[in-house]
Amino acid sequence: MQRNILLTPGPTMIPDQNYEAMARPIIHHRTPQFQQNIKDVIQGLQYVFQTKNEIYLLTSSGTGAMEAAVCNLLSPGDQCITVEGGKFGERWTELANAYGAKPTVIKVAWGKAVEAKQIKAILEDNKDIKAVFITQTETSTAALTDVKAVADVVRATNAVLVVDGISGLAANDLKMDEWGVDVVISASHKGFMLPPGLAYVAVNARAAALIEKCTNRRYYFDLRKSKKAFAGTDTPFTPAITIVIGLVESLKMIKKAGLEKWFAHQAHLALGTRAAMKALGLSIFTDASCLSNALTAVNVPQGVDGEKLIKTLRDVHGVTLAGGQDELKGKIFRICHMGCISEGHLVMGITILEQVLAEMGYAFKKGAGVKAAEDAFKNSKIGAGR
Amino acid sequence: MQRNILLTPGPTMIPDQNYEAMARPIIHHRTPQFQQNIKDVIQGLQYVFQTKNEIYLLTSSGTGAMEAAVCNLLSPGDQCITVEGGKFGERWTELANAYGAKPTVIKVAWGKAVEAKQIKAILEDNKDIKAVFITQTETSTAALTDVKAVADVVRATNAVLVVDGISGLAANDLKMDEWGVDVVISASHKGFMLPPGLAYVAVNARAAALIEKCTNRRYYFDLRKSKKAFAGTDTPFTPAITIVIGLVESLKMIKKAGLEKWFAHQAHLALGTRAAMKALGLSIFTDASCLSNALTAVNVPQGVDGEKLIKTLRDVHGVTLAGGQDELKGKIFRICHMGCISEGHLVMGITILEQVLAEMGYAFKKGAGVKAAEDAFKNSKIGAGR
Repeated sequence: MQRNILLTPGPTMIPDQNYEAMARPIIHHRTPQFQQNIKDVIQGLQYVFQTKNEIYLLTSSGTGAMEAAVCNLLSPGDQCITVEGGKFGERWTELANAYGAKPTVIKVAWGKAVEAKQIKAILEDNKDIKAVFITQTETSTAALTDVKAVADVVRATNAVLVVDGISGLAANDLKMDEWGVDVVISASHKGFMLPPGLAYVAVNARAAALIEKCTNRRYYFDLRKSKKAFAGTDTPFTPAITIVIGLVESLKMIKKAGLEKWFAHQAHLALGTRAAMKALGLSIFTDASCLSNALTAVNVPQGVDGEKLIKTLRDVHGVTLAGGQDELKGKIFRICHMGCISEGHLVMGITILEQVLAEMGYAFKKGAGVKAAEDAFKNSKIGAGR
Repeated sequence: MQRNILLTPGPTMIPDQNYEAMARPIIHHRTPQFQQNIKDVIQGLQYVFQTKNEIYLLTSSGTGAMEAAVCNLLSPGDQCITVEGGKFGERWTELANAYGAKPTVIKVAWGKAVEAKQIKAILEDNKDIKAVFITQTETSTAALTDVKAVADVVRATNAVLVVDGISGLAANDLKMDEWGVDVVISASHKGFMLPPGLAYVAVNARAAALIEKCTNRRYYFDLRKSKKAFAGTDTPFTPAITIVIGLVESLKMIKKAGLEKWFAHQAHLALGTRAAMKALGLSIFTDASCLSNALTAVNVPQGVDGEKLIKTLRDVHGVTLAGGQDELKGKIFRICHMGCISEGHLVMGITILEQVLAEMGYAFKKGAGVKAAEDAFKNSKIGAGR
């Protein structure tokens, strides 16, 4: 008998409506029927991105959209800023280097977020910087960047601001137009509750001008091709048809709830999860100044084998959490609470986490985690649930 | 009431087993469970590709795999041969140009296939050519290239042979190792009976050596990253999880039937389809010397509006055929018979095609197409059906 409670920060669990939509007999993509799906998806994404900008669909994982941002905005030799506070911030640096750009890297302690003034100092020193790449929610550490504060700084310069919203978007607020963010990217398999395979790039006029001038070699991720296809409600290459059709459903759900309520619900779940960890005597890895609604990163307590914890939860109990990546391997575990995860899923996950922690010899008051989560959910004023 | 008989050459219809596999609660990709899926998929693909080479999975449409072949094998300034006999051959040229290579283009009349001797002549003249790019089945014209004959020519030189098997593979024979093809690419949404979003690249030792030396900028499609991940039964970036899981099922079906029987069945369906077209007085667009098992391209008869034909079949009757692309727009229609399409689907499609042709004023003996297909199926010696 199998059970599969997926509490990982990507892929996330998928609602039944989405499974149903994706299981409908597949249709061809060059048809008015599919064009309607694309129209619905673009409109829905514009609502979540809080933008009137064009949004391009790419058939790739999130990294494909990151590559599109780098190889379309930066020409070889161009200078940029990247922020390394975790595995995905490092990816911006790797991409910049791969495409011949010259990144000035801001190193941030894992678990903390970059401060706008750090970016401001470098931009003031160096007027040649063309782009600033940041990560809304750094999935590897659960740290949330204050995108608005960074946008306030970058907007006043000639540089464009590119935000990786792969993990953060649809879980935390990001007002692309109001805050003046130039490029926002995201993907299907996190806050959008779908399988991986579809990514999106939203581009404003300032960024569009850079794209036209960029000299990097590119084809599949060439956003000039995307722009041309977008004008005809099309994609330049065969799209991930079933995920697009599933995305219509996700976006309907988000729209129906309303963005404010949607974010509040994710914050509500985060609150309960963190209350539970505290009651179990566990500490949060991420700095209290930069907690994301998307997931919670928890320090593995002394005496507990972090990798064995994840393995036992998954292989014996059917509850999948994420462990730590790279330098955090074995040191943290991560619980996702974005997308369609409910209070019930989290209570179930916490119950089984308690059981396995007890088996592994960790001392705590049994049931304290579940009680704390339930109390927090009951008393929470931020989200009455969806 | 909706009906959807999809007879387009990509996406193709999807068997129920695959829908079921893809609708299972999604699992995380960094788990032993998913590693087993990857193992099964690689083994199954090696069977279909008829190779012992490494095969890398890319989350993209087929064009992503084409790009991977170009940007990993050719450095700027390198010479290559491309063959333009349709839209997808032209894509090889576009990609070569996009990555700074210098293609010698062989122009072939649409509907015909390149001859090995044409490639031989250029290779003899120019020893600096690094790679030859061909298309197994050119989807836009239904022409099948004699890959073995081309491989015999290229193998004797220093150039590598790259075959786009996106439409052809799993419908027509391609013995990668025996024929000595260096790189074969394919994708999920044609002969493999799945949604678009997953592509594969098989690479032999000769090509692997070029990949290591290549100086083109690349990241998402960098096959050095794929090679490293392959060693750990992993992918460098989040894969299209659900399509990989669906592919396990497709490959089981193909393996169970056996490749020879699988190809024979596709040939059997092609035979019936072409008999029907002939009985309706319609002519085949593609040259008789290079017919593919994957699809049949048919000339729209004089007096019939080709675009209206496709539209009426689809929007009134729920049967989707493909029209012509680019210079063939309105001039041909294409019927797919690869993947899980059955005699029944084709008979249904031909019945409705007859009905719409009659409505559009085309004169023929009613029922002749269906009778010819059924007779051909009954008398066919090549495939007793799967």
